[in-house]
Amino acid sequence: MRLVRSLLLALALASPLAVAAAQSSSDSTAIVAVMDKSVADWNRGDIDAFATCYKDAPDILFIGRTISRGYAQMVVTYKKSYSTREQMGVLSFSQLEVQPLDAHFATVTGHFHLERSAVGGGNANGYFLLVFEKTPSGWKIVRDDTTALPSATAK
Amino acid sequence: MRLVRSLLLALALASPLAVAAAQSSSDSTAIVAVMDKSVADWNRGDIDAFATCYKDAPDILFIGRTISRGYAQMVVTYKKSYSTREQMGVLSFSQLEVQPLDAHFATVTGHFHLERSAVGGGNANGYFLLVFEKTPSGWKIVRDDTTALPSATAK
Repeated sequence: MRLVRSLLLALALASPLAVAAAQSSSDSTAIVAVMDKSVADWNRGDIDAFATCYKDAPDILFIGRTISRGYAQMVVTYKKSYSTREQMGVLSFSQLEVQPLDAHFATVTGHFHLERSAVGGGNANGYFLLVFEKTPSGWKIVRDDTTALPSATAK
Repeated sequence: MRLVRSLLLALALASPLAVAAAQSSSDSTAIVAVMDKSVADWNRGDIDAFATCYKDAPDILFIGRTISRGYAQMVVTYKKSYSTREQMGVLSFSQLEVQPLDAHFATVTGHFHLERSAVGGGNANGYFLLVFEKTPSGWKIVRDDTTALPSATAK
Protein backbone atom coordinates (compact mmCIF):
# COMPACT_ATOMS: atom_id res chain seq x y z
CA MET A 1 0.00 0.00 0.00
CA ARG A 2 2.86 2.29 0.86
CA LEU A 3 4.39 1.45 -2.54
CA VAL A 4 1.15 2.32 -4.33
CA ARG A 5 0.97 5.64 -2.50
CA SER A 6 4.60 6.33 -3.37
CA LEU A 7 3.96 5.51 -7.01
CA LEU A 8 0.85 7.71 -7.10
CA LEU A 9 2.79 10.49 -5.46
CA ALA A 10 5.63 10.15 -7.96
CA LEU A 11 3.10 10.18 -10.79
CA ALA A 12 1.40 13.28 -9.41
CA LEU A 13 4.70 15.08 -8.97
CA ALA A 14 5.68 14.21 -12.51
CA SER A 15 2.47 15.58 -14.08
CA PRO A 16 2.81 18.85 -15.99
CA LEU A 17 0.40 20.63 -13.63
CA ALA A 18 2.31 19.50 -10.54
CA VAL A 19 5.58 20.56 -12.16
CA ALA A 20 4.09 23.97 -13.03
CA ALA A 21 2.77 24.41 -9.48
CA ALA A 22 6.11 23.41 -7.97
CA GLN A 23 7.89 25.78 -10.36
CA SER A 24 5.51 28.60 -9.47
CA SER A 25 5.98 27.96 -5.75
CA SER A 26 9.76 27.89 -6.17
CA ASP A 27 9.61 31.16 -8.15
CA SER A 28 7.48 32.79 -5.43
CA THR A 29 9.97 31.69 -2.79
CA ALA A 30 12.85 33.10 -4.86
CA ILE A 31 11.02 36.42 -5.35
CA VAL A 32 10.20 36.77 -1.66
CA ALA A 33 13.89 36.10 -0.94
CA VAL A 34 14.81 39.03 -3.22
CA MET A 35 12.36 41.26 -1.32
CA ASP A 36 13.80 40.10 2.02
CA LYS A 37 17.34 40.79 0.82
CA SER A 38 16.36 44.28 -0.40
CA VAL A 39 14.99 45.11 3.07
CA ALA A 40 18.16 43.83 4.76
CA ASP A 41 20.37 45.81 2.36
CA TRP A 42 18.33 48.97 2.88
CA ASN A 43 18.35 48.67 6.65
CA ARG A 44 22.12 48.20 6.57
CA GLY A 45 22.34 51.53 4.71
CA ASP A 46 23.71 49.87 1.55
CA ILE A 47 21.89 51.43 -1.41
CA ASP A 48 24.24 49.85 -3.98
CA ALA A 49 23.35 46.38 -2.69
CA PHE A 50 19.66 47.33 -2.39
CA ALA A 51 19.65 48.45 -6.03
CA THR A 52 20.67 44.99 -7.26
CA CYS A 53 17.10 43.77 -6.71
CA TYR A 54 16.36 45.80 -9.87
CA LYS A 55 17.40 44.74 -13.37
CA ASP A 56 20.46 46.69 -14.52
CA ALA A 57 18.86 47.96 -17.73
CA PRO A 58 18.11 51.38 -19.25
CA ASP A 59 14.42 50.62 -19.84
CA ILE A 60 13.27 49.75 -16.32
CA LEU A 61 10.58 52.12 -15.04
CA PHE A 62 9.69 53.74 -11.70
CA ILE A 63 6.46 55.51 -11.06
CA GLY A 64 5.79 57.71 -8.09
CA ARG A 65 4.86 61.33 -8.52
CA THR A 66 6.58 61.20 -11.92
CA ILE A 67 7.79 58.49 -14.29
CA SER A 68 11.54 57.91 -14.41
CA ARG A 69 13.60 55.19 -16.05
CA GLY A 70 16.88 53.31 -16.08
CA TYR A 71 19.03 51.64 -13.45
CA ALA A 72 21.75 54.32 -13.37
CA GLN A 73 19.27 57.15 -12.84
CA MET A 74 17.50 55.14 -10.13
CA VAL A 75 20.67 54.71 -8.10
CA VAL A 76 21.44 58.45 -8.42
CA THR A 77 17.91 59.35 -7.30
CA TYR A 78 17.96 56.93 -4.35
CA LYS A 79 21.31 58.25 -3.14
CA LYS A 80 20.10 61.84 -3.47
CA SER A 81 16.76 61.27 -1.72
CA TYR A 82 18.23 59.05 1.00
CA SER A 83 21.66 60.52 1.65
CA THR A 84 21.71 59.80 5.38
CA ARG A 85 20.83 56.81 7.56
CA GLU A 86 18.13 58.99 9.17
CA GLN A 87 16.51 59.52 5.75
CA MET A 88 16.73 55.81 4.97
CA GLY A 89 15.09 54.90 8.27
CA VAL A 90 13.98 51.31 8.84
CA LEU A 91 12.10 49.70 5.95
CA SER A 92 9.57 46.90 6.27
CA PHE A 93 7.13 45.25 3.89
CA SER A 94 3.79 43.65 4.70
CA GLN A 95 0.86 42.13 2.83
CA LEU A 96 3.31 40.77 0.22
CA GLU A 97 1.58 38.88 -2.57
CA VAL A 98 3.42 37.26 -5.48
CA GLN A 99 1.32 36.50 -8.57
CA PRO A 100 3.14 34.74 -11.38
CA LEU A 101 2.18 35.98 -14.86
CA ASP A 102 4.04 33.25 -16.74
CA ALA A 103 7.37 31.42 -16.38
CA HIS A 104 9.34 34.63 -16.90
CA PHE A 105 7.30 37.38 -15.24
CA ALA A 106 5.46 37.91 -11.96
CA THR A 107 3.92 40.80 -10.09
CA VAL A 108 4.34 41.58 -6.43
CA THR A 109 2.02 43.83 -4.50
CA GLY A 110 2.42 44.94 -0.95
CA HIS A 111 2.59 47.65 1.64
CA PHE A 112 5.76 49.44 2.70
CA HIS A 113 6.49 51.23 5.93
CA LEU A 114 9.47 53.45 6.59
CA GLU A 115 10.06 54.12 10.26
CA ARG A 116 11.95 57.42 10.51
CA SER A 117 12.78 60.08 13.02
CA ALA A 118 11.48 63.59 12.46
CA VAL A 119 14.95 64.66 11.33
CA GLY A 120 14.90 61.87 8.74
CA GLY A 121 11.60 63.11 7.34
CA GLY A 122 9.19 61.22 9.59
CA ASN A 123 7.41 57.94 8.92
CA ALA A 124 6.22 57.09 5.43
CA ASN A 125 4.05 54.30 4.11
CA GLY A 126 2.04 53.22 1.10
CA TYR A 127 1.45 50.52 -1.49
CA PHE A 128 3.39 49.21 -4.46
CA LEU A 129 3.08 47.13 -7.58
CA LEU A 130 6.29 45.58 -8.88
CA VAL A 131 6.85 43.57 -12.05
CA PHE A 132 9.61 40.99 -11.70
CA GLU A 133 11.47 39.37 -14.61
CA LYS A 134 13.37 36.07 -14.37
CA THR A 135 16.78 37.12 -15.71
CA PRO A 136 20.00 35.10 -16.01
CA SER A 137 21.00 36.79 -12.70
CA GLY A 138 17.78 35.76 -10.97
CA TRP A 139 14.44 37.50 -10.42
CA LYS A 140 14.78 41.27 -10.82
CA ILE A 141 12.36 44.20 -10.67
CA VAL A 142 11.69 45.81 -14.07
CA ARG A 143 8.71 48.05 -13.16
CA ASP A 144 8.04 49.72 -9.81
CA ASP A 145 4.96 51.79 -9.09
CA THR A 146 5.08 52.95 -5.48
CA THR A 147 2.38 55.13 -4.01
CA ALA A 148 3.20 56.91 -0.78
CA LEU A 149 0.10 57.74 1.21
CA PRO A 150 -0.39 61.29 2.43
CA SER A 151 1.75 61.78 5.54
CA ALA A 152 -1.31 62.28 7.75
CA THR A 153 -2.16 58.61 7.23
CA ALA A 154 1.41 57.33 7.73
CA LYS A 155 1.53 55.24 10.84
CA MET B 1 19.82 46.40 -58.42
CA ARG B 2 16.22 47.10 -57.46
CA LEU B 3 15.57 43.36 -57.52
CA VAL B 4 18.51 42.77 -55.14
CA ARG B 5 17.18 45.43 -52.77
CA SER B 6 13.71 43.89 -52.93
CA LEU B 7 15.12 40.45 -52.19
CA LEU B 8 17.18 41.79 -49.28
CA LEU B 9 14.12 43.61 -47.97
CA ALA B 10 12.01 40.46 -48.24
CA LEU B 11 14.72 38.51 -46.44
CA ALA B 12 14.95 41.12 -43.69
CA LEU B 13 11.17 41.16 -43.23
CA ALA B 14 11.14 37.38 -42.99
CA SER B 15 13.83 37.24 -40.27
CA PRO B 16 12.71 36.29 -36.75
CA LEU B 17 13.80 39.67 -35.39
CA ALA B 18 11.80 41.56 -38.01
CA VAL B 19 8.80 39.33 -37.32
CA ALA B 20 9.16 39.95 -33.56
CA ALA B 21 9.43 43.71 -34.10
CA ALA B 22 6.38 43.72 -36.37
CA GLN B 23 4.48 41.62 -33.81
CA SER B 24 5.48 43.96 -30.99
CA SER B 25 4.40 47.00 -33.00
CA SER B 26 1.08 45.34 -33.79
CA ASP B 27 0.59 44.50 -30.09
CA SER B 28 1.36 48.09 -29.07
CA THR B 29 -1.17 49.38 -31.58
CA ALA B 30 -3.78 46.94 -30.24
CA ILE B 31 -3.07 47.98 -26.63
CA VAL B 32 -3.29 51.70 -27.42
CA ALA B 33 -6.61 50.97 -29.15
CA VAL B 34 -7.89 49.40 -25.88
CA MET B 35 -6.80 52.52 -23.97
CA ASP B 36 -8.52 54.77 -26.53
CA LYS B 37 -11.71 52.71 -26.30
CA SER B 38 -11.67 52.89 -22.49
CA VAL B 39 -11.48 56.69 -22.64
CA ALA B 40 -14.34 56.86 -25.15
CA ASP B 41 -16.47 54.49 -23.01
CA TRP B 42 -15.75 56.49 -19.84
CA ASN B 43 -16.54 59.82 -21.45
CA ARG B 44 -19.82 58.38 -22.74
CA GLY B 45 -20.67 57.52 -19.11
CA ASP B 46 -20.68 53.77 -19.82
CA ILE B 47 -18.84 52.13 -16.93
CA ASP B 48 -19.89 48.61 -18.00
CA ALA B 49 -18.24 49.11 -21.39
CA PHE B 50 -15.22 50.83 -19.79
CA ALA B 51 -14.73 47.85 -17.47
CA THR B 52 -14.27 45.47 -20.41
CA CYS B 53 -10.72 46.79 -20.88
CA TYR B 54 -9.96 44.71 -17.75
CA LYS B 55 -9.78 40.92 -17.71
CA ASP B 56 -12.94 39.41 -16.25
CA ALA B 57 -11.15 37.37 -13.58
CA PRO B 58 -11.21 37.16 -9.78
CA ASP B 59 -7.44 37.63 -9.41
CA ILE B 60 -6.92 40.95 -11.18
CA LEU B 61 -5.50 43.62 -8.86
CA PHE B 62 -5.96 47.38 -8.40
CA ILE B 63 -3.74 49.48 -6.24
CA GLY B 64 -4.50 52.98 -5.16
CA ARG B 65 -4.77 53.89 -1.52
CA THR B 66 -5.50 50.22 -0.83
CA ILE B 67 -5.19 46.94 -2.72
CA SER B 68 -8.40 45.46 -4.07
CA ARG B 69 -9.05 42.57 -6.41
CA GLY B 70 -11.42 40.99 -8.88
CA TYR B 71 -13.49 42.20 -11.81
CA ALA B 72 -16.85 42.12 -10.03
CA GLN B 73 -15.62 44.19 -7.09
CA MET B 74 -13.97 46.65 -9.46
CA VAL B 75 -17.22 47.33 -11.31
CA VAL B 76 -19.06 47.83 -8.00
CA THR B 77 -16.38 50.24 -6.76
CA TYR B 78 -16.31 52.23 -10.00
CA LYS B 79 -20.10 52.56 -10.00
CA LYS B 80 -20.09 53.66 -6.37
CA SER B 81 -17.24 56.19 -6.72
CA TYR B 82 -18.50 57.56 -10.04
CA SER B 83 -22.26 57.44 -9.71
CA THR B 84 -22.95 60.60 -11.72
CA ARG B 85 -21.67 62.03 -15.01
CA GLU B 86 -20.27 64.96 -12.99
CA GLN B 87 -18.19 62.56 -10.90
CA MET B 88 -17.00 60.76 -14.03
CA GLY B 89 -15.95 64.03 -15.65
CA VAL B 90 -13.90 63.94 -18.84
CA LEU B 91 -10.97 61.50 -18.84
CA SER B 92 -7.82 61.85 -20.91
CA PHE B 93 -4.50 60.03 -21.00
CA SER B 94 -1.10 61.42 -21.97
CA GLN B 95 2.53 60.23 -22.00
CA LEU B 96 1.31 56.73 -22.87
CA GLU B 97 4.15 54.24 -23.20
CA VAL B 98 3.67 50.58 -24.07
CA GLN B 99 6.57 48.25 -23.19
CA PRO B 100 6.09 44.61 -24.20
CA LEU B 101 7.38 42.11 -21.61
CA ASP B 102 6.99 39.08 -23.86
CA ALA B 103 4.46 37.84 -26.43
CA HIS B 104 1.71 37.59 -23.78
CA PHE B 105 2.30 40.51 -21.39
CA ALA B 106 3.06 44.20 -21.65
CA THR B 107 3.11 47.18 -19.33
CA VAL B 108 1.62 50.58 -20.03
CA THR B 109 2.61 53.69 -18.14
CA GLY B 110 1.05 57.08 -18.50
CA HIS B 111 -0.58 60.10 -16.97
CA PHE B 112 -4.32 60.53 -16.47
CA HIS B 113 -6.31 63.70 -16.16
CA LEU B 114 -9.92 63.93 -15.05
CA GLU B 115 -11.51 67.25 -15.89
CA ARG B 116 -14.39 67.77 -13.43
CA SER B 117 -16.60 70.48 -12.10
CA ALA B 118 -16.42 71.37 -8.41
CA VAL B 119 -19.70 69.50 -7.84
CA GLY B 120 -18.14 66.41 -9.46
CA GLY B 121 -15.20 66.57 -7.07
CA GLY B 122 -12.86 68.87 -9.00
CA ASN B 123 -10.02 67.94 -11.33
CA ALA B 124 -7.85 64.93 -10.57
CA ASN B 125 -4.66 63.68 -12.14
CA GLY B 126 -1.78 61.31 -11.61
CA TYR B 127 0.24 58.42 -13.00
CA PHE B 128 -0.43 54.76 -13.58
CA LEU B 129 1.25 51.46 -14.30
CA LEU B 130 -0.89 48.82 -15.99
CA VAL B 131 -0.03 45.20 -16.80
CA PHE B 132 -1.80 43.92 -19.91
CA GLU B 133 -2.32 40.25 -20.80
CA LYS B 134 -3.04 38.98 -24.29
CA THR B 135 -6.20 36.95 -23.66
CA PRO B 136 -8.42 35.09 -26.14
CA SER B 137 -10.66 38.21 -26.00
CA GLY B 138 -7.75 40.53 -26.81
CA TRP B 139 -5.39 42.59 -24.65
CA LYS B 140 -6.84 43.13 -21.16
CA ILE B 141 -5.60 44.85 -18.00
CA VAL B 142 -4.72 42.42 -15.17
CA ARG B 143 -2.92 44.82 -12.79
CA ASP B 144 -3.63 48.53 -12.29
CA ASP B 145 -1.62 50.75 -9.96
CA THR B 146 -2.96 54.29 -10.22
CA THR B 147 -1.52 57.09 -8.13
CA ALA B 148 -3.59 60.24 -7.86
CA LEU B 149 -1.46 63.28 -7.10
CA PRO B 150 -2.46 65.50 -4.19
CA SER B 151 -5.33 67.74 -5.32
CA ALA B 152 -3.21 70.89 -4.96
CA THR B 153 -1.14 69.71 -7.90
CA ALA B 154 -4.09 68.62 -10.06
CA LYS B 155 -4.23 70.84 -13.11
